[in-house]
Amino acid sequence: MNNPTLLKNLRNIPDFPIPGVQFKDVTTLFKNAKCMKIMLNELYEIYKDKGITKVVGIESRGFVLGAALAVKLGAGFVMCRKPGKLPAETLQESYMKEYGKDTIEIHKDAIDEKDVVLIHDDLLATGGSMKAAYNLVKKFNPAHVYINFIIELTGEGLNGREVFDEGIEISTLLRV
Amino acid sequence: MNNPTLLKNLRNIPDFPIPGVQFKDVTTLFKNAKCMKIMLNELYEIYKDKGITKVVGIESRGFVLGAALAVKLGAGFVMCRKPGKLPAETLQESYMKEYGKDTIEIHKDAIDEKDVVLIHDDLLATGGSMKAAYNLVKKFNPAHVYINFIIELTGEGLNGREVFDEGIEISTLLRV
Repeated sequence: MNNPTLLKNLRNIPDFPIPGVQFKDVTTLFKNAKCMKIMLNELYEIYKDKGITKVVGIESRGFVLGAALAVKLGAGFVMCRKPGKLPAETLQESYMKEYGKDTIEIHKDAIDEKDVVLIHDDLLATGGSMKAAYNLVKKFNPAHVYINFIIELTGEGLNGREVFDEGIEISTLLRV
Repeated sequence: MNNPTLLKNLRNIPDFPIPGVQFKDVTTLFKNAKCMKIMLNELYEIYKDKGITKVVGIESRGFVLGAALAVKLGAGFVMCRKPGKLPAETLQESYMKEYGKDTIEIHKDAIDEKDVVLIHDDLLATGGSMKAAYNLVKKFNPAHVYINFIIELTGEGLNGREVFDEGIEISTLLRV
């Protein structure tokens, strides 16, 4: 938790995308070979004995470490995308955002009932998009579902964890 | 080249996104743990001795194996994205598509002159977006640039390779 090399390389961008927001820019971790290795190893240590068979990455920063982790765990990788981007039949989930409704989808044949699923994204802020992804994955009735983020924001009244029911297993690498 | 397990698992979707197009759906390779391992190992064999220091993935299917390969090569991973998604200063490149202009960008501090860069995407069709990514990466004046695709389309008058100057080193895992 809170590896100093990761903390040192995580870039803060003030007032992005709107004034007052301190944006945590994970791209400075991605572009750094040492940070990539640290993050992947930390993720692997958390999940290596969980029997994960599918890693779901949330579009699109969740694709980056999600896919790398899938291969390291010997699992498949599944994309959770915005509507219209997946070419075959999908299951969908809609959710409310600050300025309207959003929808995400996953291919209908991407997950089955035997799968142990890890859903991965880069950042936990309000938890809205991950909550929707969790609800969507649950529609496939998989054996178990885990949730992971690289970064968990803890400041200014944010408590993204609160939107998830108790008992859901959530891990994060950095709490900032 | 053309590993039979990959060929068997690659899904063809007729008439997507428009009538007459046979869409090659790489998600059926991503969701299959065995295929992920085969693809990553094939990529690693091609590039392990090239001194790659940065892998650039093109949004967003190029993020999937691009990032996994970056970690395996001990390189950093850089996202090439649509405008407005990267929070810090960027370099941009615009290019013509069938129905108008498109623009892509990369963070200004993501690549430097010492870098040996591999640009990765899932699919070579007309080559338009990779050509733009190549031109964009060249603006950083890196030591060398390689190009890779998982799939190269060869049918129906397609020859995506032709848009690249001779001498540019392009590899593909599947020619279909």
